[in-house]
Formats: sequence, C-alpha cells, structure tokens
Amino acid sequence: MGISDLFDPESIAVIGASATPGKLGNDAMANAKEFDGPVYPVNPSGDGEVYGYEFVDSVADTDADLALCCVPAPATPGVIEDCAEAGVGAAVIFAGGFAEAGEEGQERQEQIRQTAEEHDLAVLGPNTAGHIIPHRNIYSSFVPGFDEIERGDVAVVAQSGGIGVTATFQLEREGYGISGMYGLGNRVNTDFADVIPMLDEDPQTKAIGLHIEGTTEIDAFEEVVADASTPIVALKSGNRMHDFVEAHTAAPNQSYERYEEILTDNGGVMADSVTELLDASRVLAKSPTPDGPNVGLVTAQAGPGIMMSDYLAERGATFPDLTAETRERLDDLLLGFTYDENPVDTGRPMPQFGEVIDAVARDDNVDIVSVYEIFEHSLGYPIEELEALAEEVDKPIVFTVAGPYEPLEPDRKRMEDLGIPTFDAPERGAFATSVLVDQGR
Amino acid sequence: MGISDLFDPESIAVIGASATPGKLGNDAMANAKEFDGPVYPVNPSGDGEVYGYEFVDSVADTDADLALCCVPAPATPGVIEDCAEAGVGAAVIFAGGFAEAGEEGQERQEQIRQTAEEHDLAVLGPNTAGHIIPHRNIYSSFVPGFDEIERGDVAVVAQSGGIGVTATFQLEREGYGISGMYGLGNRVNTDFADVIPMLDEDPQTKAIGLHIEGTTEIDAFEEVVADASTPIVALKSGNRMHDFVEAHTAAPNQSYERYEEILTDNGGVMADSVTELLDASRVLAKSPTPDGPNVGLVTAQAGPGIMMSDYLAERGATFPDLTAETRERLDDLLLGFTYDENPVDTGRPMPQFGEVIDAVARDDNVDIVSVYEIFEHSLGYPIEELEALAEEVDKPIVFTVAGPYEPLEPDRKRMEDLGIPTFDAPERGAFATSVLVDQGR
Repeated sequence: MGISDLFDPESIAVIGASATPGKLGNDAMANAKEFDGPVYPVNPSGDGEVYGYEFVDSVADTDADLALCCVPAPATPGVIEDCAEAGVGAAVIFAGGFAEAGEEGQERQEQIRQTAEEHDLAVLGPNTAGHIIPHRNIYSSFVPGFDEIERGDVAVVAQSGGIGVTATFQLEREGYGISGMYGLGNRVNTDFADVIPMLDEDPQTKAIGLHIEGTTEIDAFEEVVADASTPIVALKSGNRMHDFVEAHTAAPNQSYERYEEILTDNGGVMADSVTELLDASRVLAKSPTPDGPNVGLVTAQAGPGIMMSDYLAERGATFPDLTAETRERLDDLLLGFTYDENPVDTGRPMPQFGEVIDAVARDDNVDIVSVYEIFEHSLGYPIEELEALAEEVDKPIVFTVAGPYEPLEPDRKRMEDLGIPTFDAPERGAFATSVLVDQGR
Repeated sequence: MGISDLFDPESIAVIGASATPGKLGNDAMANAKEFDGPVYPVNPSGDGEVYGYEFVDSVADTDADLALCCVPAPATPGVIEDCAEAGVGAAVIFAGGFAEAGEEGQERQEQIRQTAEEHDLAVLGPNTAGHIIPHRNIYSSFVPGFDEIERGDVAVVAQSGGIGVTATFQLEREGYGISGMYGLGNRVNTDFADVIPMLDEDPQTKAIGLHIEGTTEIDAFEEVVADASTPIVALKSGNRMHDFVEAHTAAPNQSYERYEEILTDNGGVMADSVTELLDASRVLAKSPTPDGPNVGLVTAQAGPGIMMSDYLAERGATFPDLTAETRERLDDLLLGFTYDENPVDTGRPMPQFGEVIDAVARDDNVDIVSVYEIFEHSLGYPIEELEALAEEVDKPIVFTVAGPYEPLEPDRKRMEDLGIPTFDAPERGAFATSVLVDQGR
C-alpha cells in the first residue's frame, strides 16, 4: 500500500481506458501495455479488447496496485473513492482542473486528499504527465513515445510534467535512457520529500535531477536532501513569473536562494538550464567522487582547449603543475608539442593521444581528468588506454567530443560503458568538469 | 588574384598530395576531390592517380588559383615561393610551426609574409584547419568528413581551426549545413577584416559567427564590423589563459570588453559558448528584423513556458498586454485555458494550437513570437498555420521543440524551410528569442 505501489506495483489499472486512438485513455494504454504484470483497462462502456487486454467494468473487479486515472477532473474524486475501496495503493491523476484552477478545483483536490489520507493511497498529481520506470517496464503516462524510452542511470523528478517530458526526450535524443521520471504536478500527497528517499534506495538510480517551482513541504524537502547519499542536482524555475507559476502547479512563491542553500549545503548542485540539469546529473551518475578539485586538462585542439580552460578558470578550477615524472613522460611522447604545461595540448589528434591522457590521469597532482578531442576516422578515440585507466585509476574522466555523428557515436558509447561521461560541446564538457571540481572541494 | 581566389577559385592544387590513406595530403585530396573544376595533386614522387586525379610534379605545371599546402613547416616557405611564381592567387597552409612556435617559426612566417606581399598572394593560416564553402563544393581542409558537410546559411570565421571544425560538425549533427567555415590560424595576411567583407557580399551567407582570440588588426576589424549589413555574432575566447592563447595562434592579449563594445555598438551579438554562437547566428540568419522588443510567448506546456519566461525576463524582455481583439479570439479558442494573459499557455497540445499562435502573431502589440510545444504524434506541429503566418505576417517566429527525435524531425525541417528557426531546449529557444529582443530595441 501507499507510495511503494507507485515504484513497484504488481498490477496496473487504466481507468477511463479507450480503444479510440488519440484519446487520453488510449495513449495511456499504449504505454501501460509494456508492463510485465496484469494490466486492466477499466471502462464500463468499453467493449472487447484494447492492446490485447480485455476491458473490465470497474476497478473493484481487479487486484490493481497502481491506477492510472484518465478521466476528467469532475469525475476524478469518485474514481479515487472507487480506487481506495478496491484496495489500490497508488493512483496517478493526469487531469488538470484542481488546486491550480480556482475554488471549485481546490475543493476537488481537497476531496481527493481526504480520501487518499483515509485509505493510505499515494496520489501522483493531479495535473501531471505521470511517471516512468523503464527498468521495471512501468510507463504510467499518456505521452506518446514514452514506451520507447530506454533504461539509464539518472532519475528526473519534475514539478512540471512538461519539463519532465522535455528532459526525458532530450536524454533519449542524445542517446541516453533514464532510471525514472516523476512528474509531481499539484502534489496532493506525493512531493519531492516522498520520491527522493525511494530513488535514493533504488540501485538503478545513480543521480537525481530535480525541477522545482516551489513546495510548501520545504522542511521535509531539506531533510531528505540532507539524508540522501545519491547525488542531487536542482533546477529552480519560476523565479520571475509567480502568477504564471501559481496558475500552473499551485506552487508557493519561494526564493531561489532558499533552494540553493539547501542544495549546496548538502553537497548538491544547482543547474541553470535543462541541459545543465541533465549534464550535471549524468556526470555525477557516472563518476567516482574526486579526491580534490585539481583538473588535468588534455586537449587535441588548442582553440577548444582555451575555451574550456577559460570556463573552468571562471568557475574557480585550478590546473596544478604536473609532476616531474609526468612531464618527462610527456616530453618523450610529444617532441615539440605546442604547450608543455597543464593544460596539455597536443595540437591535433595523434596515435599517442591515449598515452598522453594516461600520463596526466596517473599524475598524483591531478584529481579530475578532462579531455577534448575532435574525432578522426583514421585514429578513432583511445578506447584501449581509457579502458586501462577506468580499471586501474579511480579518478573521474570527462570526455568532450566533436566530429561527424555516425563514426563518432560507437566510440562515444564505448566510453560511456567504461563509466566515462561524454559531452558534445566545449561548454558542456567544461560545465560537467566544473561540477566535479565543486564536488572535489 | 588575392583573396577572391580563396572564395571563388577556378582550379585547385593540393601540394604534397599523397595516395597513402591517413596522410595529411591524402585527407586533403579526399576533400578537394569534391570540387567541380580542375584539381591537381602536386607531388614529384607521386605516381599514377589519387582519387582519379593524375599527379603532377610541380605547381608550375598547373593553372591553379588556390593551393592547399600539405607540407611540413620547414618546406612551406619554398612551396609558397613556387606558388607565387606559378601565379597562384591564394594558398592555405595547414602546418603549425610558425609565429606560434618560437623564433625559428616567426622567421618562417615572416618569409611567407614577404613572398605573399610581393606577389599579392592571399594566405589562409598557417596553423589552420582550412576553409570550406559547400555551395561552391570547395572543401579546402584535411578534416575527414568535411566533404559531407551540407549547404547552410550561416558562415563561421574562427581564429581557431579547432573551434571552426567543432562548430561545423555541431551544425551538421543538428541537421544544418553551413555557408562557409574559415579557420584563420596565424593570420599571415588573411584576417577577420579580409574575410568579413567577402561574406557580407555573399548572398548565401545570412549571418556570420566569429570565434575570436585576438587580432592586432583590431581597427580594421572594427571598420568592417561597422560596415557589414549581414548580422554578426562573436564568441571571444582566451580571456583568462593568455599564455595558452599565445602558444596557439600568437594572438595579442586584448580585453573581452573591447570586442564587446565593437560588436554591440554595431548591432552585433556576443555569445558565451559555441552553442550560443550557432544559435544566435541561426536565428538572425532566418528571421526578419523585429519592429520592436515585445515578445508574445505561446506555450503548450506551462513548466517549460515558465522557464522560458524566466530567462526572457532576466534578459530584459517584455511581454506586452494583448489587444482586446486578440483576447477575445483566444477566449473563443481556449474555453477555460490555464493562463489568459501573455504568456499564453494552453496547458497541453491541442488542435487549436496553430490558431492560438496565429492570434498572438497577428496582435499589433507583439513584435516577436516565441513558441514552445512538445511534439505529439497525433497532432504534429501546426505547419499549415505557420505557413500562412510566414507568408502574411512579417514578424520573427522562434519555435522551441521537444519530443522523440524521429517523428519530430520532418516537421522541424518544414518549419526551418518556412524561415522559422527551431531550437530543442527551453533555454536555447529563450536565448534565441532574447537575441531578437536585443535586435528589436
């Protein structure tokens, strides 16, 4: 019962399921059909089957743990009542028209809250795009295309379902999956403080990205952020547009600084954009914690190297001197190379580039390795050397790539599989490196 | 003679051409072979053909206008001499080892400069990745994969070839081409001030993106920026890492503020990253100049809408009240919609979304239209309505997209073809919109 049925149900009911394409209850079934356990399309006027599942008249005829409510707002309180009586443990409410929508809506939300409280029913929403947990084949959402989202190691908890959906598809488009996406919406009784601890215990989730507009449960939020051992990144939105926010998820007007304090006091990271939210989450999910903030930067092209150095210096990163041993090794590798300090720049890709990375990564003065190289067909990326480093040296390596998509992509995937996060623009690689610098302090 | 042969040669010589894959002279031939006119692989020890072109012994045996020099630094002054005597008008020097590399290198560069001056020879580089002009099938570079770069409407002039290459591939990966990429390198006698006027006259180039580390010819730079009618965006790099910069393209140490002043005094834009450089260039290339800075923001999902409003408000954008007429039209379209002011949020995609955009775009108080919508299979994007707007209303429209890559991409291309630039993250769409806001002031 309760929130665990949101994370790990044994059966799912889709209330208001429909066989008509384009209807919300059909879109939700298209996603729910991926689930491995029983799926019950509930609709008294339903006839026959939808996606191979036979319609049932009422949620009372099922043993569902999780109910997806695809009915309009006015019908929702009754449906939630039915769910509670049928012993459902968790319900997702997609419809809007509740606390964000005037007095009538507020009353409806209050009704639902009371029912949920009496029966220990966890409610996600209302006014949400739902949630997905690909490694459990749970796609509890009406968003078309969500059933194809793959497994990853980052979870996103978004106050706005729209941001959750945007972030999910952005990860997918860039070749990553997700370990979970939770759209909180109006937060009847499932808030950041309820979801974060569950994700903190989920072995598939290596980092948690939050999109926050504001929550009245900010003390509970602070507590779970302090308790979590999984890295957390937050993007706080709605700092300037409070009227718009209130009409959206009925969030209270709270300052950016308050959330920033909670996050940074507890080793978390603030992001300024969706891309930063995902990039910071990805780098923290993949990387070992650095022993310190010292960056060894290795570049195969000076221009991007200068740009990354600039960004990193602006964010307070330091580039330590390399040891005499490393410099000797580099001198042997790079007769007449263009810049013989840290950053190390080889001027262009070369067969020894992997050894150059190796030398810098094994330097005792270096805590974090950051690499930039434009892909060249004839050389590829130095996968063998990176493989050895991933096995033998417990330091984060961030690899920033550039080049033509198709030949580059397989090597990029290989690096990700080695636990080396990759980024495809100088500023993105530099930002990800700076997240590790902050962590190393 | 001179710089026009860099832009529009009738024949190309590749000096140091090689039939051995992986060699610089082979990579350069692989790109040069795309040219429609005569291509001459020059190498006295070359035997037979390379990419179907027969080796010649000397550049003197050719009528080449443009020479790509694929020889090491020490051999370069002699090759440039040969070129000058053979009547070549422009030469690209890929090798490093000149002004950026100590006294010997400086002497070499001086030798080249003198030869070039005496014979009115335009030299691009040394120490450059070269240049490409896809609409003329000129791929004057050793970078593998460059021969597949397509035509676009943005030109990039990069002091660092590495940034030029990075930017070119980033545009290509995101589905755009380029109207030209010019890596300036050490700037013997081809500097920003020489390239910008040529691009300003090029009808294929609708915006120019610059990567600047610093140039001694800053007064000439200021003049051409003031004279240009094509929009210019600049990314100034190397602000913190001067030693590194000097070792790279031998650029002088100049302040960010000096370049910022030149750009913004003349209606140009400063970018903070490669992505911003390309996004600002793309939006200026596609959009009509707005009559004012007033933004009409239309969103189909409130969360991203709030985020974009935030960014835009932070950058000083204003959201004017809509006219009574527009509000009436919107009220009819959106019974009970979630936020009935500007920004206009429909809460989710709907069949009327195109009409909502239309209403806002035709509002007299609105100068710039910015739209955010997550793609839904069953609805697609409102192409028909956008088509009518593109034809009938001369205002910039920026469309920020999200969703699964494959079904989204065709509609995205259709919008670009209508002159509506698209961006795939809330912060990118907001940044592009803010560039237009600055332009509208």
